[in-house]
Amino acid sequence: MGREFDEQDPVKLYVPHRNPAGEVRSPLAPVGVFDSGIGGLTVVREIMRQMPQERLVYFGDTARLPYGSKSRSTIIRYSRQIVRFLHTKGVKAIVIACNTASSCALQTIARESSIPVIGVIYAGAVTAVKASRSGRIGIIGTQATVSSGIYPNVIRNISPEILVFQKACPLFVPLVEAGLLHDSVTDEIASRYLQELKGKYIDTLVLGCTHYPLIRSTIQRIMGDEVTLVNPAYETALELRQILEREKLLNPGTESAQDGDKYQFYVSDLAESFRDFASSILPAEAKNAQTIEIEEY
Amino acid sequence: MGREFDEQDPVKLYVPHRNPAGEVRSPLAPVGVFDSGIGGLTVVREIMRQMPQERLVYFGDTARLPYGSKSRSTIIRYSRQIVRFLHTKGVKAIVIACNTASSCALQTIARESSIPVIGVIYAGAVTAVKASRSGRIGIIGTQATVSSGIYPNVIRNISPEILVFQKACPLFVPLVEAGLLHDSVTDEIASRYLQELKGKYIDTLVLGCTHYPLIRSTIQRIMGDEVTLVNPAYETALELRQILEREKLLNPGTESAQDGDKYQFYVSDLAESFRDFASSILPAEAKNAQTIEIEEY
Repeated sequence: MGREFDEQDPVKLYVPHRNPAGEVRSPLAPVGVFDSGIGGLTVVREIMRQMPQERLVYFGDTARLPYGSKSRSTIIRYSRQIVRFLHTKGVKAIVIACNTASSCALQTIARESSIPVIGVIYAGAVTAVKASRSGRIGIIGTQATVSSGIYPNVIRNISPEILVFQKACPLFVPLVEAGLLHDSVTDEIASRYLQELKGKYIDTLVLGCTHYPLIRSTIQRIMGDEVTLVNPAYETALELRQILEREKLLNPGTESAQDGDKYQFYVSDLAESFRDFASSILPAEAKNAQTIEIEEY
Repeated sequence: MGREFDEQDPVKLYVPHRNPAGEVRSPLAPVGVFDSGIGGLTVVREIMRQMPQERLVYFGDTARLPYGSKSRSTIIRYSRQIVRFLHTKGVKAIVIACNTASSCALQTIARESSIPVIGVIYAGAVTAVKASRSGRIGIIGTQATVSSGIYPNVIRNISPEILVFQKACPLFVPLVEAGLLHDSVTDEIASRYLQELKGKYIDTLVLGCTHYPLIRSTIQRIMGDEVTLVNPAYETALELRQILEREKLLNPGTESAQDGDKYQFYVSDLAESFRDFASSILPAEAKNAQTIEIEEY
């Protein structure tokens, strides 16, 4: 981690970089975090836990979710709009807290950015490589994430001898959003999706979509206790901390920000249901969540 | 049908109207049809069957689907963009071939339009009222369609003594899109959703989402043969024909349009998979389907 952007080395495309000519933001500026909807809040929760002094601006694209079934070019276009919006809030760094957007848009966004940008893929890949003893790793994610081939690419760049097996699980997001977290239907669908991976004798499985940790117990039961499940949220927050330290952008925490000002939440639709969900999983309330028209950015 | 727009009478808001000051289009102009994605092609198929002489411009908002979980205001904003796009194609009338967009946006779009606009709700409601002997009608649809309350409102305006029972079925669209048309999981989810309606002793059930006819046999089996299933596509095409006749806009069919010119298909994402699906259900090929950036309208 901490390497500069280099067109020749694909793995470096997925690690944070800073444009040497770029503007330098204040350590007191907020970190921008975005996701296709609510899943990225698991990354926000981890950042709040590991870096309680940081200010955050979150954007969830609740009008246009899910991203997982869209094309790469559409995901890049939407991500660019969101980055332009986050820049209006003066963010000092951006975390793409969505596996699909990280898979399809991080490379483009990082290349165009004057501030550090990190995704969740690299953190997930590094953690999986560290965790695996057998060298056989499974990846589950949306159709777009799996089609992008980014997890296998990044893992092979870290450790070329590792075997990676992928499976798209398009019904997991709708099942989670329908609230069927502990349900026979989710069990049945998960059994079908995971059957193929079980036959590959993997010992590590990356939960390559921020919704999947919510059905972690079902996935663990089907895969068996001998398989380690990797949720990239923890390592992504750790990576953010390292980048901010390296760039001298860590908030010293001397400023006393009001809670309402410290954490700002924006969505493209349905702010009210977002507020309820966010407040249920975050240590801070998301009372100030508001809807913006993201197409205008 | 055929009544003019009247702010005082809610049912009239959902029937086609023509702005008296509006421009008059040529009968040779195409009819515009739009949907959140692919479901509206069932309405297109019916229009092609009933009015083979008509030229059509179809738009499917495949980048931003599904509409069923979005707010009313977002659905109206998206529908307005699509209407602006269809106007650039010189359409003489617009069919909103999506229950969710018809439920949330038809009233606004019709009020703002200088050409006839029809949705699928009125056709579905009229057909259900005609079909019901017991006066107990069920409606299934997306969360947005059910929350709008439009089917109960329109049905009560047609026939105040009829009892209407609604049920949102948010997993039907993802299950259909995952291809689980004849599957034990779809059976199980359908049984749960429809249980409540079975207890209401309805004799007629409106398939209030263009995806649902694709799992019609499952729904029929669970509801029982004594329940009539209503698919608004047929009656919507019939209603379009009546409006075009009344407005002297029916294409006389004397012009010989090339097939490629006669039917134009546009989507906001993934034109290729759209082409495959469209060609599989339409009598004409959708070879010319192309992607446009709908946010720019």
